[in-house]
Amino acid sequence: MDDKFYMKAAIKRAKTAYKDWETPIGAVVVKDGRIIATGRNLREKRKNALCHAEIIAINRACKKLGCWRLNDCDLYVTLEPCAMCAGAIINARIRKVVYGASDAKAGSFGSLVDLAELPYNHKPQIIAGVMEEECAALLSDFFKELRVIKKKNKISEEENV
Amino acid sequence: MDDKFYMKAAIKRAKTAYKDWETPIGAVVVKDGRIIATGRNLREKRKNALCHAEIIAINRACKKLGCWRLNDCDLYVTLEPCAMCAGAIINARIRKVVYGASDAKAGSFGSLVDLAELPYNHKPQIIAGVMEEECAALLSDFFKELRVIKKKNKISEEENV
Repeated sequence: MDDKFYMKAAIKRAKTAYKDWETPIGAVVVKDGRIIATGRNLREKRKNALCHAEIIAINRACKKLGCWRLNDCDLYVTLEPCAMCAGAIINARIRKVVYGASDAKAGSFGSLVDLAELPYNHKPQIIAGVMEEECAALLSDFFKELRVIKKKNKISEEENV
Repeated sequence: MDDKFYMKAAIKRAKTAYKDWETPIGAVVVKDGRIIATGRNLREKRKNALCHAEIIAINRACKKLGCWRLNDCDLYVTLEPCAMCAGAIINARIRKVVYGASDAKAGSFGSLVDLAELPYNHKPQIIAGVMEEECAALLSDFFKELRVIKKKNKISEEENV
């Protein structure tokens, strides 16, 4: 299977997040060609700052393998990881990270900083921009829709005053 | 209460980790002068790369407050946070971070990199070196003891060959 196959699985998770009105980000962890764990952004639903797609997927992968080292695992995620998720990827010794859209505001594998280039004790291989347009479109559609809803709610609030 | 009071509570957690043969690192989250959550390193016991003291304490604080924003909270930790924990602190909007010992190998609030100085959407205040000697001694004692045990085990293995 190529990188697109696994990115499509991550996009599927991002779409589930979208339906739940969470910022649409999805991730999967792959070992020996098989998806062993998935995650989607659940920050609002779980009211928890840690509940990014990558953290949920890494947590499930560690539990599944019964090991904190995910050396032979690759992670696919629709958006460039933030510092927390990039750090978790380094700590878990994940071999390769493939991400879709870049994140100019918080991306920590190339955009704001590149933690894979700093002398931590592990350097994952980073591949950026796989299915970038689809991943970015999901996010821009989500925020566009959110703005329309917020505007509508504001108008109806003002009408009720 | 001053910073030392809360750091002592974090050290207590680090000592519990030591007794469990985990690298002795402890953390507490403080809101309105009260400790609302604690954590200690549990990576080996839980076989999970995410189980650093800070992550466990932040997770518990989010659950306790029912909110992913910990704006009015401060975090005390015996060792300088790694990238994952520094990123989690930024994501959770923690106001102030007080740490004991510096970590030249992975410290991400000043040593290897200073994530609090990069343009993420939140900048926690960082105070370094509170009870530094006690925090560092715990770690050096632990690794010294671990080396002795490993050496003993190696000798007894060789005797049994």
